[in-house]
Amino acid sequence: MSGNPCWRRQERFGTNVKEQILRLFKEANGQFVSGEALSEALGCSRTAIWKHISELRAQGYQFEAVRRSGYRLLATPDIPYAEQVKAGLNTQRLGCETHFFETVESTQTEIHALARAGAPEGTVVIADEQVKGKGRLGRSWHSPPGSGIWMSVLLRPKLELQRCPQLTLVAAVAIVETIREQTGLPLMIKWPNDLLLNGKKVCGILTELRAESDCVDYIALGIGINVSSASFPSELADIATSLSIEQQGQAPLRTPLIKRLLEKLEELYFLYVEQGFSAIKPRWEAHALMLGKPITARRVNSATLQGIAIGIDEQGALLLRMEDGRTEHIYSADIDMG
Amino acid sequence: MSGNPCWRRQERFGTNVKEQILRLFKEANGQFVSGEALSEALGCSRTAIWKHISELRAQGYQFEAVRRSGYRLLATPDIPYAEQVKAGLNTQRLGCETHFFETVESTQTEIHALARAGAPEGTVVIADEQVKGKGRLGRSWHSPPGSGIWMSVLLRPKLELQRCPQLTLVAAVAIVETIREQTGLPLMIKWPNDLLLNGKKVCGILTELRAESDCVDYIALGIGINVSSASFPSELADIATSLSIEQQGQAPLRTPLIKRLLEKLEELYFLYVEQGFSAIKPRWEAHALMLGKPITARRVNSATLQGIAIGIDEQGALLLRMEDGRTEHIYSADIDMG
Repeated sequence: MSGNPCWRRQERFGTNVKEQILRLFKEANGQFVSGEALSEALGCSRTAIWKHISELRAQGYQFEAVRRSGYRLLATPDIPYAEQVKAGLNTQRLGCETHFFETVESTQTEIHALARAGAPEGTVVIADEQVKGKGRLGRSWHSPPGSGIWMSVLLRPKLELQRCPQLTLVAAVAIVETIREQTGLPLMIKWPNDLLLNGKKVCGILTELRAESDCVDYIALGIGINVSSASFPSELADIATSLSIEQQGQAPLRTPLIKRLLEKLEELYFLYVEQGFSAIKPRWEAHALMLGKPITARRVNSATLQGIAIGIDEQGALLLRMEDGRTEHIYSADIDMG
Repeated sequence: MSGNPCWRRQERFGTNVKEQILRLFKEANGQFVSGEALSEALGCSRTAIWKHISELRAQGYQFEAVRRSGYRLLATPDIPYAEQVKAGLNTQRLGCETHFFETVESTQTEIHALARAGAPEGTVVIADEQVKGKGRLGRSWHSPPGSGIWMSVLLRPKLELQRCPQLTLVAAVAIVETIREQTGLPLMIKWPNDLLLNGKKVCGILTELRAESDCVDYIALGIGINVSSASFPSELADIATSLSIEQQGQAPLRTPLIKRLLEKLEELYFLYVEQGFSAIKPRWEAHALMLGKPITARRVNSATLQGIAIGIDEQGALLLRMEDGRTEHIYSADIDMG
């Protein structure tokens, strides 16, 4: 867990010319870069450079071209293209391999396929739109184009099966801390996998995995964040919100938010792998909704329980104090207040 | 869990003509069936019947054809074709959808693909040969043609993640009880997933799964049984054996063994789903190797432990009595005597 961050390794071994062009413009810091300098640095013809710049323009990058001076990057679009996410990303593993899609069924479907094909830990799939975004228990996740972060991260921890639910909680802490730091919005965690603002869902986490019966093969960590959605379909209007709605139309840019989130997620994931869940637990509880409150837990395959949510245990299960004083450990349920 | 067994439902809804032909011959009990009767019962031309009979002959079925009397089934090959396995199979779900392959990489790979495509619980994949048979923890399983049962079963229980390892133990009991009943051989279970005869491995179980972080999507239960192998590659000769080797060359037929195994597995699986692991535990312990003996448990991601194996807990974990009197719960490990 030491060594050069992704983008430096990328610099040495990267073969994607567009990524390299963007890095050179980033280093030029708004100044002109000559076509000759680009062509020399990248070892390709000036015609090839011109072709790549045209493609970048089509993706929303704005260049000024001045005869004899070269090109100057004026503006980059807030679309989380792989090149943009990876440029300057300060991680060891997460995002080193990043795939961007304009439209996918679901980023989870893509990351599962990559995982089966042997993709390394830290591989990330980002989409601008999901047409079949997945939520927990087969539910759907509304993911229209351009309005959110629809992302999946591949993890390959050496983890016993029963510890896997903890990774949902690790991810929840990473997202809450990142969004609070970037926006100041008072996000709270609703056990196990939702993040709420003013009682409405702004983010969901879907942790799926493939395993042998006793140890994990891989984890597909899906994250959906409503960033700039201005409204929701009527059936979601009462239960969903976006960062933009909660900030009077001010939404953070997606690309820097994704970068900061990957950095934070890696930091907490490494901490969890090295020190266990006890290093994460107090940070989770610091942002938990409903602690100390009466709740109803509707369980998938057993009786519905009512009690007071008093915390989580070392496995990540929700602890419920029952009327008769017993404490129930809830491994899987939908939670409601009251 | 009631209703008609598979093969009866198959009779009503089945569209596979070869399966229907074989059933008619089975019902004729060695007597002649006329081409006209076959053609009438199946609603197809006598030329079509003749073509199907030719195909069955190519698969190893032997027919006598006598002018004016029709056809008589003399012998069926011991190759577990789907039609053969399903004919008369007395189950509700297991094997209702059965796929046979001459050669596959691994039946687990096939069952995973079927599961992702939505195949129903109980779907079975059987191969005559695996070229990349899978064992636990990425190990391989020697699976030459014609010599064993290489099979995967798809289960879709509503199960919390931490209970999944129990299904390996349920399968172990089903296999031990079936083989003991069919051959009298004193098979024993080595926790968690191997079945031994005279200290050598004769069968392995590989339980893989796909899940959300708290509940199972599906379980791919892989079973490998060395049935008629006469010898093993040198690296396996000391640790592997077959039913045939242990019975002086007498091996049971694969097809009836698979049928009986599917029936027993379904019986125990339904019992487990309805009554929980406590209904299975004593039957597992009745056939367990090493109980009361000193063992070494080499764990995947933590320290190796030595102690006395004293049983399994309600989760299916192995209980190890340590020298200082403490009891350790082992969730994942390789076990050796001593």
